Amino acid sequence: MAVRTLFQAGLITVMALSAVSAQAENFNNEIALQMYTLRNAGTVAQQFAMAQSAGFQNVELVGNQGLDSAQMKTLLSKNHLQVTSAHIQLHELENNYQKTVAFNKAIGNPVVIVPWIEPADRPDSTQGWIDYAQRLDKLGAKLHKDGLQLGYHNHNFEMKKYNGVTALEIILNHTQPQNLKLEMDAAWVSRGGQDPVRILQTYPKRVYAIHAKDNAAIGVRDDEMNFAPLGEGLLDWQHIVPAAKASGVRWFIVEHDAPKDPWSIITTSYRNLRQQLTLSAQ
Amino acid sequence: MAVRTLFQAGLITVMALSAVSAQAENFNNEIALQMYTLRNAGTVAQQFAMAQSAGFQNVELVGNQGLDSAQMKTLLSKNHLQVTSAHIQLHELENNYQKTVAFNKAIGNPVVIVPWIEPADRPDSTQGWIDYAQRLDKLGAKLHKDGLQLGYHNHNFEMKKYNGVTALEIILNHTQPQNLKLEMDAAWVSRGGQDPVRILQTYPKRVYAIHAKDNAAIGVRDDEMNFAPLGEGLLDWQHIVPAAKASGVRWFIVEHDAPKDPWSIITTSYRNLRQQLTLSAQ
Repeated sequence: MAVRTLFQAGLITVMALSAVSAQAENFNNEIALQMYTLRNAGTVAQQFAMAQSAGFQNVELVGNQGLDSAQMKTLLSKNHLQVTSAHIQLHELENNYQKTVAFNKAIGNPVVIVPWIEPADRPDSTQGWIDYAQRLDKLGAKLHKDGLQLGYHNHNFEMKKYNGVTALEIILNHTQPQNLKLEMDAAWVSRGGQDPVRILQTYPKRVYAIHAKDNAAIGVRDDEMNFAPLGEGLLDWQHIVPAAKASGVRWFIVEHDAPKDPWSIITTSYRNLRQQLTLSAQ
Repeated sequence: MAVRTLFQAGLITVMALSAVSAQAENFNNEIALQMYTLRNAGTVAQQFAMAQSAGFQNVELVGNQGLDSAQMKTLLSKNHLQVTSAHIQLHELENNYQKTVAFNKAIGNPVVIVPWIEPADRPDSTQGWIDYAQRLDKLGAKLHKDGLQLGYHNHNFEMKKYNGVTALEIILNHTQPQNLKLEMDAAWVSRGGQDPVRILQTYPKRVYAIHAKDNAAIGVRDDEMNFAPLGEGLLDWQHIVPAAKASGVRWFIVEHDAPKDPWSIITTSYRNLRQQLTLSAQ
């Protein structure tokens, strides 16, 4: 066998191995689906089946999804799904603490995330946000002792500045890293006029997960709150994903607040997210 | 008269003069209203009367508002209104050039502004935006010779980055300052994830006017596209207005894309804008 032929054979082997490697590298241990995206897609059982069919192996829950822990475990097991985290309102965490902790430990969920503040309950001063942060910190410390991690999920209202500092930064600056992680919704950060990359760089190891969705321009998807699958909107994923990896982000979680066609949204988002993670890994 | 009484008399005089000065300083020579805000508020005649009643002395038109130049002059004169500028689609400027120039010169309008690009017509590459910029530059040079200034009004889609540079910056970097000014919609800049202050500082003397409106948080004014009167949303006007003044901004133009109660929106916006301009002047 001539040298050239040997080289070609070697090249073909390398290419074949790369193909296998690319196939194996499906990033499913970094990708999850926020089930809120599927809230209008049939029964809860159908929603979990849809998540699996779309290729997801991990999901983020909305509360207990109306199930008890035994029902949830059955549904997860049936669809080969693991739970990365659950969105639970702060008053629920504070007022039904024992029950909430028991449910989440029973189903093997390690992270509970405060997802939203009602407009009437939102702080609107530096001190107000410091007080809110201390409330989260206290709860996070308690959960930590009980074996759960507390997180916070942003919208755009936390991007408002108070004496030059965003509410989001006030929260992060007034909580202990072990007591509060951030689930950064990159699209809402950007809609609030802030840069997701800057937050990732300023707070290494604080961002536990990213809600990986995109902002469509005005005139595009106006009847879907102008949200789009990752990569089909205005966000600069070419820089956000590497910054997320460098910052220690554990999960990229697909979400869409108002999908007209949830199946199309989650399958497109899953494909685009995998492509972007592949590019960033190269 | 004792020294103290003299001092008191002097103080009262100073206070009286300040009151006169504050009254005189109504900033009406810096404030205008974009008539698009009132498009659903009765007839065109009623809309211009409403602008005047709300305190405005300057308006920005939407095209020719369905009037010929004689009718427009009558309506403006009747309501003691001057025209700062007019929003005119690019194809209208290019295809009906002579007629458009004649109308605007007849009514005493010095500035025509490209307000919007339809989704299907939007460039989506660096070269595409450079080509679009050169088209604006050519038109701007022609208008300049004919005594009119060309401007561009942004939404959020120009905040998309191409190799790290926003489309808005590509436009500004590939047009001559005398051929194209920016009417910066601060709310849309922020929704696109960019900082209005940075743009004002990066491009001194390029920003001719600011669309002075605010972004409400999600959950607030959801049925008004989450736009709010200046100062009642997420934007950092405490820094934007001084940066605008330092950058040479000539006009602060009230606008709301989808007001439920236009009268409330324009009067509140006018009052808040005057307050912010007063604060910045101190």
